[in-house]
Amino acid sequence: MSRTEDAAWREPLNAVLIEWAKTAAARDKTGGTAFHERDLLRESGLLRLSIPVAFGGDGADWSTTLDVVRRMAQVDSSLAHLFAFHHLQLATIRLFGSDTQNRRWLGETVTQGWFWGNALNPLDKSTRALPDDSGGYVFDGRKSFCSGARDSDQLLASAFDADGRLLIGVTPTNRAGITVLDDWDNMGQRQTDSGTVVFERVPIATGELLLQPGPLSSPFATLRPLLAQSILCHIYLGIGEGALQAARDATLAQTRPWIASTAERPADDPYVLAHYGDFWIALEGARLLVERAMQAFDHAWSRGLDLTEQERGEVAVAVATSKVAAARAGLEVAHRMFEVTGARSTTAAARLDRFWRNVRVHTLHDPIDYKVRELGEWALNGRIPKPSFYS
Amino acid sequence: MSRTEDAAWREPLNAVLIEWAKTAAARDKTGGTAFHERDLLRESGLLRLSIPVAFGGDGADWSTTLDVVRRMAQVDSSLAHLFAFHHLQLATIRLFGSDTQNRRWLGETVTQGWFWGNALNPLDKSTRALPDDSGGYVFDGRKSFCSGARDSDQLLASAFDADGRLLIGVTPTNRAGITVLDDWDNMGQRQTDSGTVVFERVPIATGELLLQPGPLSSPFATLRPLLAQSILCHIYLGIGEGALQAARDATLAQTRPWIASTAERPADDPYVLAHYGDFWIALEGARLLVERAMQAFDHAWSRGLDLTEQERGEVAVAVATSKVAAARAGLEVAHRMFEVTGARSTTAAARLDRFWRNVRVHTLHDPIDYKVRELGEWALNGRIPKPSFYS
Amino acid sequence: MSRTEDAAWREPLNAVLIEWAKTAAARDKTGGTAFHERDLLRESGLLRLSIPVAFGGDGADWSTTLDVVRRMAQVDSSLAHLFAFHHLQLATIRLFGSDTQNRRWLGETVTQGWFWGNALNPLDKSTRALPDDSGGYVFDGRKSFCSGARDSDQLLASAFDADGRLLIGVTPTNRAGITVLDDWDNMGQRQTDSGTVVFERVPIATGELLLQPGPLSSPFATLRPLLAQSILCHIYLGIGEGALQAARDATLAQTRPWIASTAERPADDPYVLAHYGDFWIALEGARLLVERAMQAFDHAWSRGLDLTEQERGEVAVAVATSKVAAARAGLEVAHRMFEVTGARSTTAAARLDRFWRNVRVHTLHDPIDYKVRELGEWALNGRIPKPSFYS
Amino acid sequence: MSRTEDAAWREPLNAVLIEWAKTAAARDKTGGTAFHERDLLRESGLLRLSIPVAFGGDGADWSTTLDVVRRMAQVDSSLAHLFAFHHLQLATIRLFGSDTQNRRWLGETVTQGWFWGNALNPLDKSTRALPDDSGGYVFDGRKSFCSGARDSDQLLASAFDADGRLLIGVTPTNRAGITVLDDWDNMGQRQTDSGTVVFERVPIATGELLLQPGPLSSPFATLRPLLAQSILCHIYLGIGEGALQAARDATLAQTRPWIASTAERPADDPYVLAHYGDFWIALEGARLLVERAMQAFDHAWSRGLDLTEQERGEVAVAVATSKVAAARAGLEVAHRMFEVTGARSTTAAARLDRFWRNVRVHTLHDPIDYKVRELGEWALNGRIPKPSFYS
Repeated sequence: MSRTEDAAWREPLNAVLIEWAKTAAARDKTGGTAFHERDLLRESGLLRLSIPVAFGGDGADWSTTLDVVRRMAQVDSSLAHLFAFHHLQLATIRLFGSDTQNRRWLGETVTQGWFWGNALNPLDKSTRALPDDSGGYVFDGRKSFCSGARDSDQLLASAFDADGRLLIGVTPTNRAGITVLDDWDNMGQRQTDSGTVVFERVPIATGELLLQPGPLSSPFATLRPLLAQSILCHIYLGIGEGALQAARDATLAQTRPWIASTAERPADDPYVLAHYGDFWIALEGARLLVERAMQAFDHAWSRGLDLTEQERGEVAVAVATSKVAAARAGLEVAHRMFEVTGARSTTAAARLDRFWRNVRVHTLHDPIDYKVRELGEWALNGRIPKPSFYS
Repeated sequence: MSRTEDAAWREPLNAVLIEWAKTAAARDKTGGTAFHERDLLRESGLLRLSIPVAFGGDGADWSTTLDVVRRMAQVDSSLAHLFAFHHLQLATIRLFGSDTQNRRWLGETVTQGWFWGNALNPLDKSTRALPDDSGGYVFDGRKSFCSGARDSDQLLASAFDADGRLLIGVTPTNRAGITVLDDWDNMGQRQTDSGTVVFERVPIATGELLLQPGPLSSPFATLRPLLAQSILCHIYLGIGEGALQAARDATLAQTRPWIASTAERPADDPYVLAHYGDFWIALEGARLLVERAMQAFDHAWSRGLDLTEQERGEVAVAVATSKVAAARAGLEVAHRMFEVTGARSTTAAARLDRFWRNVRVHTLHDPIDYKVRELGEWALNGRIPKPSFYS
Repeated sequence: MSRTEDAAWREPLNAVLIEWAKTAAARDKTGGTAFHERDLLRESGLLRLSIPVAFGGDGADWSTTLDVVRRMAQVDSSLAHLFAFHHLQLATIRLFGSDTQNRRWLGETVTQGWFWGNALNPLDKSTRALPDDSGGYVFDGRKSFCSGARDSDQLLASAFDADGRLLIGVTPTNRAGITVLDDWDNMGQRQTDSGTVVFERVPIATGELLLQPGPLSSPFATLRPLLAQSILCHIYLGIGEGALQAARDATLAQTRPWIASTAERPADDPYVLAHYGDFWIALEGARLLVERAMQAFDHAWSRGLDLTEQERGEVAVAVATSKVAAARAGLEVAHRMFEVTGARSTTAAARLDRFWRNVRVHTLHDPIDYKVRELGEWALNGRIPKPSFYS
Repeated sequence: MSRTEDAAWREPLNAVLIEWAKTAAARDKTGGTAFHERDLLRESGLLRLSIPVAFGGDGADWSTTLDVVRRMAQVDSSLAHLFAFHHLQLATIRLFGSDTQNRRWLGETVTQGWFWGNALNPLDKSTRALPDDSGGYVFDGRKSFCSGARDSDQLLASAFDADGRLLIGVTPTNRAGITVLDDWDNMGQRQTDSGTVVFERVPIATGELLLQPGPLSSPFATLRPLLAQSILCHIYLGIGEGALQAARDATLAQTRPWIASTAERPADDPYVLAHYGDFWIALEGARLLVERAMQAFDHAWSRGLDLTEQERGEVAVAVATSKVAAARAGLEVAHRMFEVTGARSTTAAARLDRFWRNVRVHTLHDPIDYKVRELGEWALNGRIPKPSFYS
């Protein structure tokens, strides 16, 4: 995955990562909104990475954009998630919105340096969209799990109208009626700000709704959930890679092997080596599956409205495969790393448990068991996953 | 394991557990010394549980005493550890000390209501025992991992003399020269107070040293490490059982199954049920292995100095088997429980991650890999474990 | 499980096992009916082991009887199955039949030296029971999986009447109309003779039907499937133990460690030892679960018609737990043993693959996945298994 | 891996596979030399697949050649092994031999239609190379595990001279003094003819020895063991894929779900689907790792003598990673497939156990544990594998 090495934004990215790394453990302790680190992102220019060149962005493909997410997740998986979801909002506009909307919001994201937050949650039916006199709607209700809404400039928000139709709208975060609560306090992914947003009769004009072509309106538009799932894959993988690096540092810093070991140094112990071998195999397998899925995804994206259901289905299979493998690899490394880092590595100061807490929380986004089932349907019955906001 | 149900101390135990449970999650957050909860233990009378009737104690066998540890660990594995290590210090006196020493220290534990702390760490060679003029020694140096030293009344402490011989002495915690640091801050087992004790030329009289028969001086005396290992087993198992109970509460409280599930309620989902089936099998297997090992241990203890090396070796095999099974079961349940409790169960308020952090930290006491190896030596080569402070 | 060591039939059992062992590998190759080895069983007196003393048997409890099954399965799991199913037929008469029937058939089993075969298969609905003029029935149809029918003296056979009611009858194997086919040729359990029995208008008199109290007619009667499941547990465990012994012989016979090993002999290699440690832990855990389940089973059996549904349900949980653990342990050892026995151990002459083939086939009797699910129902929802011919 | 679809030899390959498939199960039963199926290979032209165009071959790269091996292994892993080892002998000449030797033996392989067998076994030190008067040697001794020696035209044979130097020579199989025994009878890979070859004072002329540049004489030459390992990878993967296909056929042919299942057909059962999902993930991960390793291998091969130790080491890591993943995936599918095919699929007629027996035997070629260790050395210590005949 060397493509991130060559680009113009390589230096800014590395600079951001170095700064984040200095405080990642400390910020895991405090939680809350990482204002300073979010500002570093804004200043880096990386918020325009996926935006097409036509709108002033860097025009990076999704493989590249998500490879950046993976590298970020090695260091700080909360911020990686915020960065990724910013680009997911932009992708949502590209998939569900009109040309005019694209030009407007993607263009302004570049010129205004906007950071986007998420208030789209298709499982949360408590926000209603009520028609108003102007032909638009007012959104009313509370949404949970709104990652990145705090300190954001723009929001993508969902609501259901009286007929149960999902409406997705765009609004500045500071519009009257919107309150972003500071209520995210979780055992992991502690700085994703995935708290509650309260909508009190917030007007959303017709032109602010993504109606043309609208949500999941074509095989192409259903790439949106696959992009969301791919983001998860890269975060799981990045956490696993970060955990491996942290484990390695700890093992190599140990001076005494276990008293019953025949090895001279911990790093030569046969069982220590066996664990590292397993970690490597798990991560390397996940890496290739993720990479392959992204190649398929980028190709599918390039097909646009020509993309067929079957083609989209096969991308979905590739993404689901990489999802399960990356989740398992990340969980395994973060869970077992302590068996090679030793008792002293559990000091709270090191906060090495954050890798486990982060991947444990994030892999619950939607159940792995049902992804495995989807893959069973494919392997046994040849059925492609049915598009939904999670497949 | 119904024996804990019948005894006179059943009510005090239940009362303690109910109180602990109220604040377990909150105290996991704050860490530090649980003064109030330690006082509840003192008041409950349970600190004399294992002490022979002849010295005024309850005369419980080790199966019973550790079954109490297991039940405590379901609720609060830090306090379970402190309670267990208190009794381990008393067992150490019984195994390594003279009749006079037993009568004195076990008797006074009952009459004075002492809580014992641990400053015995045979891997930590930085504390020296220097002979003084009186025929005794002064202990000098720093010891780490001194569980329960804070807020204790008495300490068991180890040091090495000039010839590298391990000396174990008894001292009141408040003797001049002893400083118990408040420096334990760990990712798990946060209230075990396993911090540093500093010995600055602390005099230990001859009569305070456990010299007759002394450490690991007979197969009987080498039951000490097996008791220590058995304590770990019960804590791992108790954590696993506590995690299962917490998971069950969370699953049963969920109202909506996953959108792709065919079940009407989460608790009927086929994959949810499969996880619970696995949890049950792992814990039930560990439970029987632990119970069986304790029967063997109690029998070996009753043999006293008649215990042979081979008999002791077979107890060691039983304990090691239960250790690996309990560690794996506890880790598995604490790691996987989130797959059945759902995304919302990760809120920091619930602190459900404490089960994983606790068992993850505690299973690093000594490497599981080397316990498996010991069992391989037994299964393949018929070799019993060689006694040491960890086998 | 030392109870089998003391009894009067200890010597005959050992003699049988020694003879079986001599030809077990060779007979695995040829398959077919083991006439000679079945005759050894007849002559040993073990066919009356479970029969109550009142009927002339040895009056062994089920723990003892199945412990013999386990020891047999270490050597030859096909013959262990035949022996066990012989006793299962006798148990079926005790649970479903009248006092008169018990006295007759159990008594004659002792006096005539009968070997019973199985033609009871409640999933196979192709055999019909048609009323005849005498008030009895004729059984007509084909039954598959009739273990031990070949070379048997008596059969227990099932059929469905016009109302779909399951009827179970007893008949001499050589009654006119019964043809036992020699058509069992399987990848494992090759000498269980689990082939087809053809019933061509075979008359079954009323007195030959187990109608009072009849199949699954009380909690006590529903112990029948639990006995059948317990038989499976002992066979899985015995196969695992036999595989471990065969592996150990092979490892200890090897002279050169792998070229990259630091050990001087294969039996000292760290990875070899780790595998053996795992094998030991798996088998020891299964052993205790099986033992515990049998204690519960024997106790439930002794309760007779006083046995409640809930009590029976808790025995079912214990049996199911031991079933899953024994199946997994047997499969694991038989599958992985080759990683410690080396490439040369795969010679066809040794037929070491028979352990895997045997346990692989036998663990498909009914799906392990659904046993795990049953245990999940218990652990999560507190539901006991609903009695059926498989639960 | 579509490259095998396009080539000129696609039709002959498919024809061979169709013929092999008809008798694969039956030949697994009989074992012995597959003369007819070997002749089909000879006639297909595929024996010249890897031979450079300059020598009259098809000039396929190793990715392509081994992809053919993988496809063969789906159907018949013994014959896949023979085909692969034929090409391994040719590769050995290319890596260890002179230009003259290449021209001669590769050229004649094309013109004479030779099938090569293996008598090179660097762990077997019982064959000696004694100098003779002509300046050449005589080879004397017995070699075991000589895959494909029976019915071969040419052999590559190894022997050790008095100084312990490994000499590798080429000889027609029918040279006086060579006896190929028909003594291969194994639990799996039953038609690889991996029996004994006896050398009784067999003269090997100087020009028949691979001395220039000689065995493992450069990083390039040490690609030989990596090719051998890559062959194993493709066979493991092919067996796993074949097992999955056979399992799928069996599941789809089943008509009744388990009685406790909520599904209408077995192929919709949630646990059945979960197994298939796992199979898919394991195989897909292995597939990508194998594919990636082969890209690295082909690139390294193209570098020739410019290949550095470090570059070669990184290929070795890629090959080892794919080896472990493919072995585990193949073993998992072949072991667990029966849990989805049901009890009736174990009939001896289907011989579905052959997938397990084949992959179980073949994965013992050299210990997986030590491959994992190699990968641990890489992941933890950054050490590349040290070249040997197994690394």
